[in-house]
Amino acid sequence: MIKVGIIGATGYAGCELVRLINSHPEAEIAAISSVSFEGKKISDVYPSYIFLNDMVCETSADVVKKSDVVFAALPHGLSQELAEDCMANDVKFIDLGADFRLESEDDYKEWYGGTFLDKELHETAVYGLPEFFRDEIKGKSLIANPGCYTTCSPLALAPAVKKGLIELKGIICNCASGVTGAGRKPNQGNHYPELNEGFHAYKVASHRHTPEIEQTLSKLSGEKVTVTFVPHLLPVNRGILATCYADIKSGVSFDDIKKAYEKFYKDEYFVRLLPDGMCADIHNIKYSNFCDISLHHDSRAGKLIACAAIDNMVKGAAGQAVQNMNIIFGLDEKSGLEIIPPAF
Amino acid sequence: MIKVGIIGATGYAGCELVRLINSHPEAEIAAISSVSFEGKKISDVYPSYIFLNDMVCETSADVVKKSDVVFAALPHGLSQELAEDCMANDVKFIDLGADFRLESEDDYKEWYGGTFLDKELHETAVYGLPEFFRDEIKGKSLIANPGCYTTCSPLALAPAVKKGLIELKGIICNCASGVTGAGRKPNQGNHYPELNEGFHAYKVASHRHTPEIEQTLSKLSGEKVTVTFVPHLLPVNRGILATCYADIKSGVSFDDIKKAYEKFYKDEYFVRLLPDGMCADIHNIKYSNFCDISLHHDSRAGKLIACAAIDNMVKGAAGQAVQNMNIIFGLDEKSGLEIIPPAF
Amino acid sequence: MIKVGIIGATGYAGCELVRLINSHPEAEIAAISSVSFEGKKISDVYPSYIFLNDMVCETSADVVKKSDVVFAALPHGLSQELAEDCMANDVKFIDLGADFRLESEDDYKEWYGGTFLDKELHETAVYGLPEFFRDEIKGKSLIANPGCYTTCSPLALAPAVKKGLIELKGIICNCASGVTGAGRKPNQGNHYPELNEGFHAYKVASHRHTPEIEQTLSKLSGEKVTVTFVPHLLPVNRGILATCYADIKSGVSFDDIKKAYEKFYKDEYFVRLLPDGMCADIHNIKYSNFCDISLHHDSRAGKLIACAAIDNMVKGAAGQAVQNMNIIFGLDEKSGLEIIPPAF
Amino acid sequence: MIKVGIIGATGYAGCELVRLINSHPEAEIAAISSVSFEGKKISDVYPSYIFLNDMVCETSADVVKKSDVVFAALPHGLSQELAEDCMANDVKFIDLGADFRLESEDDYKEWYGGTFLDKELHETAVYGLPEFFRDEIKGKSLIANPGCYTTCSPLALAPAVKKGLIELKGIICNCASGVTGAGRKPNQGNHYPELNEGFHAYKVASHRHTPEIEQTLSKLSGEKVTVTFVPHLLPVNRGILATCYADIKSGVSFDDIKKAYEKFYKDEYFVRLLPDGMCADIHNIKYSNFCDISLHHDSRAGKLIACAAIDNMVKGAAGQAVQNMNIIFGLDEKSGLEIIPPAF
Repeated sequence: MIKVGIIGATGYAGCELVRLINSHPEAEIAAISSVSFEGKKISDVYPSYIFLNDMVCETSADVVKKSDVVFAALPHGLSQELAEDCMANDVKFIDLGADFRLESEDDYKEWYGGTFLDKELHETAVYGLPEFFRDEIKGKSLIANPGCYTTCSPLALAPAVKKGLIELKGIICNCASGVTGAGRKPNQGNHYPELNEGFHAYKVASHRHTPEIEQTLSKLSGEKVTVTFVPHLLPVNRGILATCYADIKSGVSFDDIKKAYEKFYKDEYFVRLLPDGMCADIHNIKYSNFCDISLHHDSRAGKLIACAAIDNMVKGAAGQAVQNMNIIFGLDEKSGLEIIPPAF
Repeated sequence: MIKVGIIGATGYAGCELVRLINSHPEAEIAAISSVSFEGKKISDVYPSYIFLNDMVCETSADVVKKSDVVFAALPHGLSQELAEDCMANDVKFIDLGADFRLESEDDYKEWYGGTFLDKELHETAVYGLPEFFRDEIKGKSLIANPGCYTTCSPLALAPAVKKGLIELKGIICNCASGVTGAGRKPNQGNHYPELNEGFHAYKVASHRHTPEIEQTLSKLSGEKVTVTFVPHLLPVNRGILATCYADIKSGVSFDDIKKAYEKFYKDEYFVRLLPDGMCADIHNIKYSNFCDISLHHDSRAGKLIACAAIDNMVKGAAGQAVQNMNIIFGLDEKSGLEIIPPAF
Repeated sequence: MIKVGIIGATGYAGCELVRLINSHPEAEIAAISSVSFEGKKISDVYPSYIFLNDMVCETSADVVKKSDVVFAALPHGLSQELAEDCMANDVKFIDLGADFRLESEDDYKEWYGGTFLDKELHETAVYGLPEFFRDEIKGKSLIANPGCYTTCSPLALAPAVKKGLIELKGIICNCASGVTGAGRKPNQGNHYPELNEGFHAYKVASHRHTPEIEQTLSKLSGEKVTVTFVPHLLPVNRGILATCYADIKSGVSFDDIKKAYEKFYKDEYFVRLLPDGMCADIHNIKYSNFCDISLHHDSRAGKLIACAAIDNMVKGAAGQAVQNMNIIFGLDEKSGLEIIPPAF
Repeated sequence: MIKVGIIGATGYAGCELVRLINSHPEAEIAAISSVSFEGKKISDVYPSYIFLNDMVCETSADVVKKSDVVFAALPHGLSQELAEDCMANDVKFIDLGADFRLESEDDYKEWYGGTFLDKELHETAVYGLPEFFRDEIKGKSLIANPGCYTTCSPLALAPAVKKGLIELKGIICNCASGVTGAGRKPNQGNHYPELNEGFHAYKVASHRHTPEIEQTLSKLSGEKVTVTFVPHLLPVNRGILATCYADIKSGVSFDDIKKAYEKFYKDEYFVRLLPDGMCADIHNIKYSNFCDISLHHDSRAGKLIACAAIDNMVKGAAGQAVQNMNIIFGLDEKSGLEIIPPAF
């Protein structure tokens, strides 16, 4: 059994990791930590876990010591030293935070206001979006697990971008996320009566996931891609829907695009390319690691509209992290993630 | 007091009209009708009205007879003969359905599969979006009250379109609507457990409101405009948010655009142009006739992002119809519509 | 126009008062105050009010100075001195907090841990539940406006209690409230993802509204009544449903009870006694001052089950406060409160 | 592997069974059927299953032929002949409907209007609430799987009833259920806009689960028990909370009661008796087979208040059916049901 440590276990992504690893057939939780709840049980924080997982939160140092692989679900800026510790102790490190996601330190400075503490370490990090970078992930020690919007939007666009079927200029990622994406800490905007029955955009064209989406699409296309990214907040717990718009290149048919997607994703268990006539719906992937994609054609305007739905806490965070662990350790990539999404 | 008749009073738009006219200081309900509930009280259908409005549904002929102005909230195809009756009886007619909205019979055929029964009658119809066409509405007898998406999207874009500040090619209207927009009739998609905690696009680039949005924008710009329109279904009761994207023309600054909006809407009571830093939210206009607009700039991609929020049942249906009535009869345009949106 | 001051205007009950007074035909807001937001506009706190009410929060002293009547919506313990100020300045005082609700200082000590600062002042206070104590309210200066649960539960039971038709021992008030009842301040329990899709009891048999419910029922019956009161938290914004259980006295028929309710409430505009076969639903009274009551009979167990639904923010707080103001000043009791509850 | 057949697979309980059996380590789905969707894939009905379970609905006869055990999730009246078929073919039969739940044919006639087609068959049926009747279930062929309310309420009260700690007269089961309890078929009451933000009782003191609750409590106590049962409809997808009230017998302390519960449930994996200070919440057992119970004392009124929360689709239907299958076949009772409830 792989010994798993979870740092930041009492945040939403951390507690979702606890749940997933708890039922993973080839891994077990060795230790968990939380700065805010050190010395408390995770089930004191999340009563749904009571009697099933009553592990006590230790320090991050304890966690590193006891684990073969450490997942860190922390605010940005806190993972770099942890990663060094893990590397020094020959422990794999999967970072659910943003510290290792951007390859360009300039981008990191611009969007996060931080610097790379150890540039060589950053160079060893692999961006853990398995459907695109699986071969690079295998056997690696330091994984930058993508954010939620940054998993969903590129999955919606990748085949078209990679095969050069759409214009790279003018791409729009219009996204909507469930509230868990904003974390566990209560604030006015997520206070039930002020969010319920509401819907609005936020951080319009200024969200930190923008350069990350662009980095992935640029890698896939081999050219520098700029996207317009607008997130919205949905009054639901889980799920992100990305509705992406791009101009179809002259001479390319919608059928060409559909075929490219079919080919690109044909062996990807976690991507479900929906038949014509269906629309990706966050309702259908809740609690699972699946990404549902539907393709649509605006023939009057010559646009591709690609919708992708993921569970922001699973494929957009903890589930993808487990998928990365499975790849690193040479397990079946689906291990611990084979749940059928509930019908309601 | 203006005598108001409501045909199709037991649908969602119809029952909202009942509520609004019931508290209108200068109008009163003369009669209501419903095919499905003829002979029943409206409060049998909507128990929230019990003892406050227990009017019995009559026939549409009864309604026409007793009214100075008739509102019809019917599926498309049913308003044309009614309109003729009203004109013949010198009764004003405000149609909340789609029959008189499109000026081009070809468009009507293509998108609705119907024909214009009386072309001359269609030529007398005025499209009732007061913020754009107020002067034409005054004193008229036949008003085509716009649909919900078709109110919200043009309001978001009008000043930029009219003043030639954005490219007319490539405009995207990404919209999300509350469930009341789908009407009162239960179906699987609106069954509580299958919609709750879900979010998805529908009728992607093929919704009937597309040509209506284009017609309005074309009128404002003086050129033929094509838009990409993608509606989504939100798990909330009321509200539409339109998030619209357009390329800013070369040489135009975002500041120019903001000034154009301020000028365009400065005397419009029902349009609230939000200060910088705020985002239009359907939470803030529920139950009211207001349209909140926020403007955003993607300077990296050179795009304007304009968000507009309305209550689909009020500014997107019944409230706007009352606003049109007020204009036709020379009343204060705000009469009966001065509610402050509740804070929660 | 009556000059109204609102102290604690940025809490949920306070902001609802702003909305109601704003459209009251015979009253106007003279000043508002807020400790947390002094110097800020109310529309900065509640953006749905923007441009419609942008009043700036002043101090409570300012408010008292400018008003004919002051509403205070404050946590308990803060109203007693304010009330003295108002009395000294000949300003009416309507307290939405708990300080003047309990007549027994012992009860106040036991349940709130406070003391009566000025016992004579307390003796002048009238408990403002108009359906029971209208005559005492008229012309008074100091009104203790009841809490939400304490309006709903007694309204459900009053006629049976007053007419001696049910046993006074063993009464159960099983209640469920929308989240606004817990106030504007975010906390973990009201954080969207942790409340959404949940339902639970809280403060079981220990909620502070217990002695207040008992006080009202004891006054109505002339005997000391003890009730079992269990509140629950509902994932909705507004509304309280009280489902009350009591043993029907030997020799009393359910028909006797129905007749007693009809007689008791026949002239009460804000109480809607529903026809047989209907069940009171919070859906049907939202945003209004109505209380819907349905009566049910468990003939096998000999029990009366009475359901009452109110909007906790209107009849359970701000609306009832306005109703009390109307009575004090000799206005039509319905003034400013005649809204038909929206159908959805 | 046990071959499982599911009749009525496209209803909510049936489709939940598909999901549970799909991940059961010792069982597999042999065939499914549906009258409404014969010849269609289950994933056509529930798109969340697409590509993961695309089984085609056959006839019930096909299902019986291919299975070791058949689950039937059908409206009442349809299971009796099916059960006979199964018995004739030596196939175990677990009925999620009501046909075999009531032991008294008179009760069945009174509450369901039907008759027992084969009285001997009825005598072989065992009521499948394992926490109470595990020993009788072992090795049996015909199981009447309890309803949702009828699982939750008796679990809340059993130890107190069985040990004679509460009065059997005057017991109240005040329950609230998520919408899936009303089934998949859309109707006006479950149409999203009319249920959302609502809450109401229904079938007050007349719901068909009443005699079933009474039967279980009567068996546990050895005396005829009558309860007052009032269900309510919650605007959530899943979950039932039963808040049960009973008079504590003279001479019995609340501590006695807590000890009795601890003893009664100490070996029951699926019952989680919560520590003092916690309240059972449907939020915490969603998607799982757990029943959370919290005990509360109204010392002023001498009442026990016991809250129990289950997922109506799992412990209240499909999960309990799997638990029964596990017992019949001598598997680990937890097999296939060991999910930790998600934290949100």
